[in-house]
Amino acid sequence: MTKYEKLTLEELKLQIQNILNKYTDKESIYKISEIYDRNLSTEASKILENELEKLLKPYQKGSIGLAQINPIAGDIEYNSKKVVKYIQHAQNIGLDLVIFPELTLMGYPIEDTIDRHPIIVEENVKWLKQIAKITTKTTAIVGFVEPRKYDHLTGKKYFNSVAVLKNGKIEGIIRKSLLPTYSEFNDYRYIEPSPVIGNQPGETLGDFDNGKIKKCQMTNEINNLKYGISICEDCWNNKEFFNDTTLYSIDPIEELSKENPDVFINCSASPTRAKKEQLKHNMLSFISKKYSTPIVYVNQVGAIDNSSFDGSSRVFDKNGKLLARAKSFKEQFLIVNPHMELGKIYPLTKGLEKTLTETKAYTLEYEPDLERTYKTIIQGIKDYFKKTGFQRAVLGLSGGLDSTICAVLLADALGPENVFGVSMPSKITSSESKSDAKELAQNLGINFTEAPIKEMVETTNNCLQSLFKTVETKWDGRYTQSFTMDNIQARSRAIFLWGISNEFAKCLPIATSDKSELYMGYATINGDMSGGFAPIADVPKTKLFALAHWLNKNREVKNAIPEAIILKKPGAELAIDPKTGKPLIAEDALMPYEFLDEIIWRIENKKEHYYDMLNSKFLYEERNEITKEQKIQWLDKFYRRMSSALYKWSILPPSVIVDSRSINKYDYKQPITSSRINYKGLEENDILEKIMEFSKL
Amino acid sequence: MTKYEKLTLEELKLQIQNILNKYTDKESIYKISEIYDRNLSTEASKILENELEKLLKPYQKGSIGLAQINPIAGDIEYNSKKVVKYIQHAQNIGLDLVIFPELTLMGYPIEDTIDRHPIIVEENVKWLKQIAKITTKTTAIVGFVEPRKYDHLTGKKYFNSVAVLKNGKIEGIIRKSLLPTYSEFNDYRYIEPSPVIGNQPGETLGDFDNGKIKKCQMTNEINNLKYGISICEDCWNNKEFFNDTTLYSIDPIEELSKENPDVFINCSASPTRAKKEQLKHNMLSFISKKYSTPIVYVNQVGAIDNSSFDGSSRVFDKNGKLLARAKSFKEQFLIVNPHMELGKIYPLTKGLEKTLTETKAYTLEYEPDLERTYKTIIQGIKDYFKKTGFQRAVLGLSGGLDSTICAVLLADALGPENVFGVSMPSKITSSESKSDAKELAQNLGINFTEAPIKEMVETTNNCLQSLFKTVETKWDGRYTQSFTMDNIQARSRAIFLWGISNEFAKCLPIATSDKSELYMGYATINGDMSGGFAPIADVPKTKLFALAHWLNKNREVKNAIPEAIILKKPGAELAIDPKTGKPLIAEDALMPYEFLDEIIWRIENKKEHYYDMLNSKFLYEERNEITKEQKIQWLDKFYRRMSSALYKWSILPPSVIVDSRSINKYDYKQPITSSRINYKGLEENDILEKIMEFSKL
Repeated sequence: MTKYEKLTLEELKLQIQNILNKYTDKESIYKISEIYDRNLSTEASKILENELEKLLKPYQKGSIGLAQINPIAGDIEYNSKKVVKYIQHAQNIGLDLVIFPELTLMGYPIEDTIDRHPIIVEENVKWLKQIAKITTKTTAIVGFVEPRKYDHLTGKKYFNSVAVLKNGKIEGIIRKSLLPTYSEFNDYRYIEPSPVIGNQPGETLGDFDNGKIKKCQMTNEINNLKYGISICEDCWNNKEFFNDTTLYSIDPIEELSKENPDVFINCSASPTRAKKEQLKHNMLSFISKKYSTPIVYVNQVGAIDNSSFDGSSRVFDKNGKLLARAKSFKEQFLIVNPHMELGKIYPLTKGLEKTLTETKAYTLEYEPDLERTYKTIIQGIKDYFKKTGFQRAVLGLSGGLDSTICAVLLADALGPENVFGVSMPSKITSSESKSDAKELAQNLGINFTEAPIKEMVETTNNCLQSLFKTVETKWDGRYTQSFTMDNIQARSRAIFLWGISNEFAKCLPIATSDKSELYMGYATINGDMSGGFAPIADVPKTKLFALAHWLNKNREVKNAIPEAIILKKPGAELAIDPKTGKPLIAEDALMPYEFLDEIIWRIENKKEHYYDMLNSKFLYEERNEITKEQKIQWLDKFYRRMSSALYKWSILPPSVIVDSRSINKYDYKQPITSSRINYKGLEENDILEKIMEFSKL
Repeated sequence: MTKYEKLTLEELKLQIQNILNKYTDKESIYKISEIYDRNLSTEASKILENELEKLLKPYQKGSIGLAQINPIAGDIEYNSKKVVKYIQHAQNIGLDLVIFPELTLMGYPIEDTIDRHPIIVEENVKWLKQIAKITTKTTAIVGFVEPRKYDHLTGKKYFNSVAVLKNGKIEGIIRKSLLPTYSEFNDYRYIEPSPVIGNQPGETLGDFDNGKIKKCQMTNEINNLKYGISICEDCWNNKEFFNDTTLYSIDPIEELSKENPDVFINCSASPTRAKKEQLKHNMLSFISKKYSTPIVYVNQVGAIDNSSFDGSSRVFDKNGKLLARAKSFKEQFLIVNPHMELGKIYPLTKGLEKTLTETKAYTLEYEPDLERTYKTIIQGIKDYFKKTGFQRAVLGLSGGLDSTICAVLLADALGPENVFGVSMPSKITSSESKSDAKELAQNLGINFTEAPIKEMVETTNNCLQSLFKTVETKWDGRYTQSFTMDNIQARSRAIFLWGISNEFAKCLPIATSDKSELYMGYATINGDMSGGFAPIADVPKTKLFALAHWLNKNREVKNAIPEAIILKKPGAELAIDPKTGKPLIAEDALMPYEFLDEIIWRIENKKEHYYDMLNSKFLYEERNEITKEQKIQWLDKFYRRMSSALYKWSILPPSVIVDSRSINKYDYKQPITSSRINYKGLEENDILEKIMEFSKL
């Protein structure tokens, strides 16, 4: 929730009066609702609710409140408080119905927690039952984890359910049928698919299975209208829309449509990812049009660990036209009536509607996706800190792009006063790096200090060199060129940052690694890739450059990022390039970022392999002439480095998933010991030849 | 594979002759086979195979070779080489059949890798087809990932299949129906359940679904015997055995039994966990008895990341009696004939057959499970290093129990010459700690040196103290008592270890945290919990004590662990206890390990919650008098510390799963932001009261 806004009752009344004078009744509903969303005192709410009730009278039949809330996983009391608040609000303003996102009381995802700590499932049922008691004629649809009877059970122990609460009772239960089990979703680890589509009586709660299906309507009747209720993935399986390529064999919406419901309702918890929102929009529109039935979709908002949910709840009318849409990345209570054209379309965060990975070819035009990227990460940081009880962040400011972007994001998410930037120069650090870091900090208004690591690095290095001498007496294989010195610097800096976090309350150090470098393992364990949170771990380097420009243009304070930071070539400033005598440039150690990021994009979005890439033209090749040998060298380097980076991915701190695909360990799993995969593959003849060789052994 | 054994052909012939003279024909088969398992030259194999072929003549009809192999995930060439070798061996000795574990060519698990890099699936099909070509009248059953046609597809993109290869052709395909999706298993993330039970013709490969089921027998006829073939989980769903509580509604074995097969075959990849083996044994025995049909179960061996597969492939005759069992934790080719009583029962690693968590009450008698624990971890270390290309390990030796046990395990897994122990005393380190560490290293024969961290800690601390002064000018909330100094020490040590790993080829540093301390977050980030591998992360402290005694008794070199190390009270030696003036004892900072480990055990094995534990008697309470207040204090501390340890679990290095349940992130998932769960729960009345309060807001 946003901060409590102090508004005197007189001021409020005046504001309301002004709204009523200036706007139509329909518009006034939304203007007044927006004041309610600011989180008022009880008295103020009452005043406001009275006005809303009056305005809503003509719209009552079929009116729905979409309670787009930001829950905390497993904190049932916290989540219930929000549920109670919005149920009462809906009652006070006389709505027919108030609906909440998937797993409202538990938060989504909760993962294996419910299996190991079944008490929290018991708790969420207890709370549900008590919440039911305060319901009146306004129906509430609330998500929860439903336990199944454990004895003689077939299947998993839980259902993912929503309860229909009315007049003090649990009237009905709808259970999720389609269980997403891919990417960040693991429903089938603990949830049993419902053996039946649609509504079952409330008395089935906690004791329901295949043999206990009651004969009843699939749809729910509420104030003489029929609602076809489903949960999240249940509406994502339309064969026609998905071109006959679907994940499941049944389509709950198709089933529900057989009873000709007046409205579809879908309770969701659907995180934002590049490319997804347009698909979602088109699909919901398609469904409502196909069945000539409005669909009301309520989505969770807020971040839970790596998943950032965008909200943007919405309603499509029976012609597939968007009638209403809630705000993105904000809690909101949105009032709609799908039959009476009551709704308001709040603007979507740019990038949600059309995002770059939708295009078929790789592009460096990241602009369309930058606002979404920004808000997704901001919410990710904010909620991770808030929900784990942290408040402040400390990070190293190298004067380079990664730490710069992290600093901006942290300042915006936590407030500049809660961010401490530390410049930690070594003897390699240029004076520009130091001054750039300082300038950035000043522009952002964050706290800043300089703490040289020279002394520490020297002491450490001295100790280590003598240790190496001893080790050398027993072990061969000492590298003539190693990254030891580079890593000592990165690790010394991490010791400083973790030190501050140990010494000052509620403070987390930040890992500044970006996606391109994580793919290449170009990040130091216990160094720059270590921290309590990794804000840009799912943003490739070329996109970070675009984001830097965007931030300079779109933040309230313009040009906070010094131009010099954006212009300089990225490099870790950990070692001197013997060829130039200057700090090593990352692209020289790796390959051009533009080329690297296109490899990543091709693998993640098109699942291309080595020869696919070798034989097609990269964007980089259109702009730069490179030999085939050069391309082969880069591709070989990519796969070699990626294979040995798998371990680093497995110990990466929590980070927000941003792209359509990521290497976040809760999104993508690859055994570390699979590092010997032959990504080039072999021809049939070569295989046969090898087999013949093997058979001779 | 074990090292190539140099045996001259004359020696071999003599050995064989001696065996034939001394043993019965049946026994000779196994004695000679054991020589083959040592991995001989081609010529030697030929000699040996000739003898085996002669001995096996009377047993030919229905003879089966169980190729219990250790694959590398995704390394199809490596795995295929083993497959070719054993197929040829089976042919050379005239077996009817040779069978391999689940997903033979790919290795299990492969996880999302096949989704992102579909080329390796194409590759495994290519290899399968070429391998088919070398088959003769000996049938081979080989596991692989089967792609489905992508267009107009319902469901996931792959099947988990086995192919029946014979006379140069793929004769049949059997697809897995039941998909484990819990704990370390994630089959349903990428695998579609088979729409049919049992065999389908080979021509269906790669183009099969519900609409394309061919009419044919479920069972496979091979040399006039009928085989009912299934894959792993497919045989784990007998309603009767599991007391009517099963995970899936269909039972493939029950279906297959309808055709009265002569033998069941099950191709598995089933990792070892406490308690599991006895269950598996009983279940397989139950099935064979119930259907009066022998069952042949072939299991994968070796470790893939966190999962350690024990092998122990086996055969039960039609009366449910164990007829044959392969070795545990070793590659082996085991010849059996279920109808002719041909089989040998190799001894099971102690702990596999009966393990401590099977008992209903918590116990400190870990002895029955220690050999299994030891071998599981040894294999985990060995295979992680080998499969990722590492060879040597460096670890800090504190003179404490955790690092001691790690050192022993590493010495045994990698060879003492490949282990470097570094004693890194600070000013708190006692002289006993130093001498204990040294003595241990000498006893183990590992490399050892001392590298004081005093200087580094001082330099770091000086830098940090002045940094803190600056931070303090901007931020409040500086702790009066912090863990900063403790952590600087732990992190300095990690810098030394990672430094050695950076400087010397093929060397990984080791994280020494144990399970009890990880539960309590009693481990330093970037310090002792950092490393390339964490050998004892799933072993609680009280079990480590038992393991120490066991190692001293059962290793070749007795009493390698100095008595003093086992006798001293665990403590990190990072801080001085102001009360005693001596280094802080861990149990004083936490709670008695015996009590702590019982909490963990109760949560993991019995899913107990706070009040369950408060209201029942702990083993510790039977031996020590404690007040209820004390117990409450410990329980509160446990949940508080566990909640804030969730982040640490998420960045824990790879480690072997040993217990029946663990906190390994690939086995157990809990959102970090769920740290505010109320593990005590609330009474209904309290809930109602709170709701009433909320409604007044």
